[in-house]
Amino acid sequence: MKVELENVKPMDIEKRSFEIITSELGDVQLVPGTELIVKRCIHTSADFDYAQNLKFSEGAVQHALDAIKNGACIVTDTQMAKAGINKKALARYGGEVYCFMSDEDVAQNAKKNGTTRATASMDKAAGLSKPLIFAVGNAPTALVRLYELIEDGFLKPELIIGVPVGFVNVVQSKELIMKAPVPYIVAQGRKGGSNIAACIVNALLYMINNSRD
Amino acid sequence: MKVELENVKPMDIEKRSFEIITSELGDVQLVPGTELIVKRCIHTSADFDYAQNLKFSEGAVQHALDAIKNGACIVTDTQMAKAGINKKALARYGGEVYCFMSDEDVAQNAKKNGTTRATASMDKAAGLSKPLIFAVGNAPTALVRLYELIEDGFLKPELIIGVPVGFVNVVQSKELIMKAPVPYIVAQGRKGGSNIAACIVNALLYMINNSRD
Repeated sequence: MKVELENVKPMDIEKRSFEIITSELGDVQLVPGTELIVKRCIHTSADFDYAQNLKFSEGAVQHALDAIKNGACIVTDTQMAKAGINKKALARYGGEVYCFMSDEDVAQNAKKNGTTRATASMDKAAGLSKPLIFAVGNAPTALVRLYELIEDGFLKPELIIGVPVGFVNVVQSKELIMKAPVPYIVAQGRKGGSNIAACIVNALLYMINNSRD
Repeated sequence: MKVELENVKPMDIEKRSFEIITSELGDVQLVPGTELIVKRCIHTSADFDYAQNLKFSEGAVQHALDAIKNGACIVTDTQMAKAGINKKALARYGGEVYCFMSDEDVAQNAKKNGTTRATASMDKAAGLSKPLIFAVGNAPTALVRLYELIEDGFLKPELIIGVPVGFVNVVQSKELIMKAPVPYIVAQGRKGGSNIAACIVNALLYMINNSRD
């Protein structure tokens, strides 16, 4: 059987994909400076809802880019998001990716305090003495705990990427972060996921990399 | 600030989420035996398009469940899908998860043959002498190569989960797999991803586990 494939070289597929996305977005207005992030989320999901649901606090993107260039580390709430983040690109600026969800002490603290492991893993992250970007793609309880830690003065993140996906307390947890005194990128509503969390981190990394060329 | 969260215990969140999904699906008719897979994809993405775009070959689910129970291994095309698969649940039946994308020999063969690494990693997988389920969430070229390997008699997978996401050759590669003589679960159209690939594997694992209770 002969299959009709578009003749695009592997290295050109991403470029062609972004051209298609830009073309199909048509007249949709994106906030200046956020376009590459929004388009990469659409690229990762083939879901044009991200053109509408991604919300950025004033100056969040530039603040995050500066933080990464100054060696900020990433904390995620899933091993999947950790696996998806371009760790080599991040390491160029001195950053690392942490996910504490499978740690034994996190499991113990969660059990002791009657919380989720996501909550306990945010507590563990708050003990790091480094500039931090949180990329939350799964657990609304992680966002709620981040809000509490910020309100109580225990944490001052460089950025919160708040993109948990789901049906229970997801919408509320994102609205909470959008009221916190913290730079944020949030996918308003139910959508998001570990893939979107990793994708937003990678979009930031590629923005820095491209601006260096 | 007081935040209004739905009072659902962590262990009950998944159950409540599935209730919401079932309720919002309303009169949508799902193919009997595929419901748990479709609903888990919606749970993973908050995207109800998966109620329409997931296509199952006749008997694919039962065949896959039997294969897993007989120790089938999973081959993925991303580290992210590998990270998302419940490896503990799979190991109960003797299965493992492989992703060859970062392997040195795969990089070398791809360069030598002028293919993508995804193509080369499918060739490597074809050399495994185990029953195999392929979970492809990223690379259309992986699906195209699987099709060729099957047509040429080098490979007889237990199941292909064909859910790459994207804008270039993604739709065509999925249509190709749906014409191959192989059990398949395919997300027709542009949507899919590593998260959906992992989610479908996990749905199969949970179906086996629940039926044992």
